[in-house]
Amino acid sequence: MLVRYSNNPIIKSSDLQALNESFKILGVFNPAAFLMNNKIYLLLRVAEQPKEVSGKLRIPIVKNGKQTRLTYFEVDKNDPDLMITDVRKYKWKEREYLSSLSHFRLAESEDGVHFKISNQAWMLPDGENENFGIEDARVTKIDEDYYVYFTAASDDGYVTSMVKTKDFTTYHRKGIIFPPLNKDVVIFPEKIRGKYFALHRPEVFPFAKPSIWMATSPDLTNWGAHHVLLRPNNSGWNNDKIGGGPPPIKTPQGWLVIYHGVSLSSSHKGEFYSLSAMLLDLDDPRKILANKTPILSPEKDYETSAFVKNVVFSNGAVYMKETDELMVYYGAGDESIGLAKCKLQDFLILLSSG
Amino acid sequence: MLVRYSNNPIIKSSDLQALNESFKILGVFNPAAFLMNNKIYLLLRVAEQPKEVSGKLRIPIVKNGKQTRLTYFEVDKNDPDLMITDVRKYKWKEREYLSSLSHFRLAESEDGVHFKISNQAWMLPDGENENFGIEDARVTKIDEDYYVYFTAASDDGYVTSMVKTKDFTTYHRKGIIFPPLNKDVVIFPEKIRGKYFALHRPEVFPFAKPSIWMATSPDLTNWGAHHVLLRPNNSGWNNDKIGGGPPPIKTPQGWLVIYHGVSLSSSHKGEFYSLSAMLLDLDDPRKILANKTPILSPEKDYETSAFVKNVVFSNGAVYMKETDELMVYYGAGDESIGLAKCKLQDFLILLSSG
Repeated sequence: MLVRYSNNPIIKSSDLQALNESFKILGVFNPAAFLMNNKIYLLLRVAEQPKEVSGKLRIPIVKNGKQTRLTYFEVDKNDPDLMITDVRKYKWKEREYLSSLSHFRLAESEDGVHFKISNQAWMLPDGENENFGIEDARVTKIDEDYYVYFTAASDDGYVTSMVKTKDFTTYHRKGIIFPPLNKDVVIFPEKIRGKYFALHRPEVFPFAKPSIWMATSPDLTNWGAHHVLLRPNNSGWNNDKIGGGPPPIKTPQGWLVIYHGVSLSSSHKGEFYSLSAMLLDLDDPRKILANKTPILSPEKDYETSAFVKNVVFSNGAVYMKETDELMVYYGAGDESIGLAKCKLQDFLILLSSG
Repeated sequence: MLVRYSNNPIIKSSDLQALNESFKILGVFNPAAFLMNNKIYLLLRVAEQPKEVSGKLRIPIVKNGKQTRLTYFEVDKNDPDLMITDVRKYKWKEREYLSSLSHFRLAESEDGVHFKISNQAWMLPDGENENFGIEDARVTKIDEDYYVYFTAASDDGYVTSMVKTKDFTTYHRKGIIFPPLNKDVVIFPEKIRGKYFALHRPEVFPFAKPSIWMATSPDLTNWGAHHVLLRPNNSGWNNDKIGGGPPPIKTPQGWLVIYHGVSLSSSHKGEFYSLSAMLLDLDDPRKILANKTPILSPEKDYETSAFVKNVVFSNGAVYMKETDELMVYYGAGDESIGLAKCKLQDFLILLSSG
């Protein structure tokens, strides 16, 4: 099964430089993964935070304009209007702020293990729909185009937005493709019976537990025919939430879908994120052929004792045809990036064995 | 401005017969309204509840199959697994149930005031997406087809589903057009610059207050390009939630949009639903030309002291060209139906005056 790379984490905060001198890297995690020109690329989620100063709290904000950039404003730590609600959030004058903001950067590699990481942002949050940052990109290549879609967080909640690019030098914005509250969207890499398919994960609190939904589209930007594909079960691993992972990978046996499950078990203090996998019918992905829980769960220090404890979360994987290797990149504890590999054939045998 | 019809409510529970002998009508409210063959039709939301028996609680359910029907199961009122959470909800064995289930019935009228009401359901809840009932239909006529879309409530949350009909004798299901949690969808009656437009109202708790979003579509079933059109303001009337009302009406000055606002003011115990109106640009409905709050708010006994107190809510209005009359049908207190009228010209003058 999935075996962790011996030198994990393969990318960590100290490998990156902050975008400007006032900021520091808080974490690099949850990367999209894709192949381009025979190289493996990651689109990293990079969370940056203003450097600390005594007596003051610096609250990060995005400044849009001719040159979009990360900046901050300062509040006195004793300001009666300030509430530090948790390690990730502030409230100031009745308005919410995040303690860090995420953007995307490219990293490229010949071997999938050693990455050259850009010191520039590939994409910064832009406009009112993204004022709390952009997070957890997925990349699906369809024909000659790459579709990059991601969680856009703002005062209005979180949505999934999309851009299109031919070569990752420029991109065109396609708008919000799933309205709030929705994340963990993954788009299949080809039309099936004339339609594009996607998984998505609407928030349904307090009515139900977050489940994996499926939708179809004629054009990748407009989505309909929504229905539930899979709900959280009582496995212990996927009790409380489930959501899509990397874009599905086509195999002879079916669409391979890696997804995450969250358990709020009492033995862990907080949420516990692990990975599971299922196989969907090639011609009718509404049919689940096999489902295996879990395939990777937090064990190592960098997963169990990180910024957020007990998280393995994947939104990027690539399949190397020549070696039959499945390379699963994952965010470890909202802090660093791990790699876990296996032969696809072994994976499929295990999945089919139930 | 809008003037209530003197004999309101025009339709009330005692005007209807329950679908079967075990049930009673709890309320008839929130109708869609449309013109067909020179008649005014309402598509009524009818809420039915099992008749009471001593010592037992009858929980309504939908039985799907060859003949879909309303039925119930009985629970002892002292059952320790039973919790009566509020007047509208039960919890039994950790599962939620509603105290009543809604379906749709047709009512037709020559004058818009006196209605002949069907004793049959026009549509019953069908399948797992509707096991908590179907609610608050809107009808948009586009070319020769009527599109009926409505809130479908289930264990998975609430969504907006759509059917298409030529003449209201049969209909074809088009599936879920807006995934959970989403209601108050209204579709414009024609393409604008090559696209269909809709308003919708995603739930964004706890991130923001429910706002009116806009989306576009190539085909009415797949939706994208989502963005916020209008957020709740601090008017006192629309403080806490806003959402679309009847389908927009085309006027020479712009698209007339009637919408509802909710205030949780301390002077009323609970939510306070009133109606507001805005005018959107004919060529670019993303532009708000005028906005007027409120245009109708709970005043009469049948609005302030009904099953749910202090509610006027409209999802149906028709415009009579010959008389220039705008007929706004509205649900009063989740119990009965009121009518409020005015000359469209007067309405537009008032709107433009701010």
